Amino acid sequence: MATQRIVDFLSQRRPMSPCLVVDLDVVRENFNGFRRALPDSSIFYAVKANPAPQILALLAALGSSFDCASVAEIEMALEAGASAGRISYGNTIKKERDVARAHGLGVSLFAVDCVEEVEKIARAAPGARVFCRVLTDGEGAEWPLSRKFGCVPEMAIEVLEHAHRLGLVATGVSFHVGSQQTDTQAWDGALADAAHVFQRLAERGIALTLVNMGGGFPTRYLKDVPSAEAYGRSIFEGLKRHFGNALPETIIEPGRGMVGDAGVIKAEVVLVSKKSASDENRWVYLDIGKFGGLAETMDEAIRYPIVTARDRDAKSPCVLAGPTCDSADVLYEKTPYPLPVSLTVGDEVLIEGTGAYTTTYASVAFNGFEPLRAYVI
Amino acid sequence: MATQRIVDFLSQRRPMSPCLVVDLDVVRENFNGFRRALPDSSIFYAVKANPAPQILALLAALGSSFDCASVAEIEMALEAGASAGRISYGNTIKKERDVARAHGLGVSLFAVDCVEEVEKIARAAPGARVFCRVLTDGEGAEWPLSRKFGCVPEMAIEVLEHAHRLGLVATGVSFHVGSQQTDTQAWDGALADAAHVFQRLAERGIALTLVNMGGGFPTRYLKDVPSAEAYGRSIFEGLKRHFGNALPETIIEPGRGMVGDAGVIKAEVVLVSKKSASDENRWVYLDIGKFGGLAETMDEAIRYPIVTARDRDAKSPCVLAGPTCDSADVLYEKTPYPLPVSLTVGDEVLIEGTGAYTTTYASVAFNGFEPLRAYVI
Repeated sequence: MATQRIVDFLSQRRPMSPCLVVDLDVVRENFNGFRRALPDSSIFYAVKANPAPQILALLAALGSSFDCASVAEIEMALEAGASAGRISYGNTIKKERDVARAHGLGVSLFAVDCVEEVEKIARAAPGARVFCRVLTDGEGAEWPLSRKFGCVPEMAIEVLEHAHRLGLVATGVSFHVGSQQTDTQAWDGALADAAHVFQRLAERGIALTLVNMGGGFPTRYLKDVPSAEAYGRSIFEGLKRHFGNALPETIIEPGRGMVGDAGVIKAEVVLVSKKSASDENRWVYLDIGKFGGLAETMDEAIRYPIVTARDRDAKSPCVLAGPTCDSADVLYEKTPYPLPVSLTVGDEVLIEGTGAYTTTYASVAFNGFEPLRAYVI
Repeated sequence: MATQRIVDFLSQRRPMSPCLVVDLDVVRENFNGFRRALPDSSIFYAVKANPAPQILALLAALGSSFDCASVAEIEMALEAGASAGRISYGNTIKKERDVARAHGLGVSLFAVDCVEEVEKIARAAPGARVFCRVLTDGEGAEWPLSRKFGCVPEMAIEVLEHAHRLGLVATGVSFHVGSQQTDTQAWDGALADAAHVFQRLAERGIALTLVNMGGGFPTRYLKDVPSAEAYGRSIFEGLKRHFGNALPETIIEPGRGMVGDAGVIKAEVVLVSKKSASDENRWVYLDIGKFGGLAETMDEAIRYPIVTARDRDAKSPCVLAGPTCDSADVLYEKTPYPLPVSLTVGDEVLIEGTGAYTTTYASVAFNGFEPLRAYVI
């Protein structure tokens, strides 16, 4: 997945290790892929996946909208050229003063999942549109989906009716099927829930119009994943099944699916060793770990492809760890990672599929190590 | 654990939430406590726990030495006034060019745990002193101790002999009994291993002199922990038991034990809600979470005391979560946290015992949120 442009950049520029290189051509292809697969949906890029200004500017120019988690992300999207009308404040957890700031910047679309949040928005962004997030079970997702966001559909009905009573525009329902979702059918149950909420509110005289189908679209790590087209077909069928001829407006919020496979981390082998003479697994220590950008290896959730110049040599299982003095900074141990037996100190490795959820996850300076540098080309 | 100085600072300065406030008086007391408890040991402060310049300067002035994880931390210790002779490069995972840089800065004490690392040091820091880290089981520790650092004692013997052969000074053995170690007897087995390595190398004509007993000294979170004196007595008895009259020089490396209870995070309740009408637990969302400095809540390992102005009211269990759009950003869920039923949006909470492993763990800008601000008073 290291494109020729990334390979050329690394060989010509030889940037210091570790660093991330993101190829904008891949982001553009991904955006166009989503547009083709779901031509009737608006694409709201999940800025948190990678807020690099060049990525935001490209997507703004391509006509993307933006799903923002904070006022800072809203400001970045505006700077990149998005109009406020193309921005959703998609975090269900907002300080009232941040709602007011977003409102002041012209943002008029807000996520909620409880009456408490509706009341903040009614006070700080009067007249705004709100959508209510409903809980889904996240089955089939590789990154753990907790119950942190959303409420049960029955409560969503009350939340949206409350919004309507307070003068907000109750605009629809959102859900999230779980990040790195590899089951194309995962959207179906949530669409059924959404249709139920639409119907119940219609009975109360409130016409919802929007279904925000969230993100979850996977990037290819070690295993193949379904194509954007396969997701598009499955989602469209689900919409027809549950909404019939009265299809709602729809939004999707790809983050990982937009930039994950556009990025490659160059890292260096700092040490290869064993713990005892009889140790079966080698320990391979890289100059990047859990606190330097690879936080998604938490619980070994995301398993990145790792490419070395020695991949034609025989391989044997390794425990892979980061460079900090923290014993929790181990990437893969429960399921050791096969790496070339010839791998040695100073070797370069490429960690693929690292365009999303790496740079901003990096710690400020844990153990004195700098945050992950990034080059967007 | 919020000292009067911290309480006064917060009420007079009213800094923006979230932020950490560290009271240097507590750091001074902790340093003096360690000095009293282990009068014959040198104290090497583990800089990674909190590298705030004011903390380093205070400890340098008090006569502390410094355990550094990287060249950046070495430079911080030097800037704070420590001489290079009072610095240990304690990370067993070092790039050879970083060893050379440390050597160039005058550092002459290095950690190793394998022959590969010894060879780097022999090349890049000829003549330096090295100590070899041995594996311990970490039983009794609250923060997970993996097998990431150290080797078995039998291998340590070979590693140190190899260092000796390459012209380095094989100076001793280190170990770490696991962070937030609450069993004062935990040092005993490791001291037995260290004595065994000493003896075996003496038989080969190599006289080790140093036992680096690492950190692990706990800070008080919700449960009481033994006093520094109790650790001191237990460790001194272990030394006598295993080394007899030939007591080695000893080093301790407190980090959490030095600064953990010196810091308090001020945070704000952003939202209190339920997921369904029948939900037994409330969800309480703070403006700080796993990615904003509370990374040690990973797997609910560290359970911080949380103080509110409503603590005299009745309490009920809450799921506690951070402010980001990441479903993994949940602090306590498996074991819900009892908080006042009257707790509401906008309330201030104090998260105590947060002087260590918070600011530098914070992510650069995840979800657009700034890293944790800190005030050292």
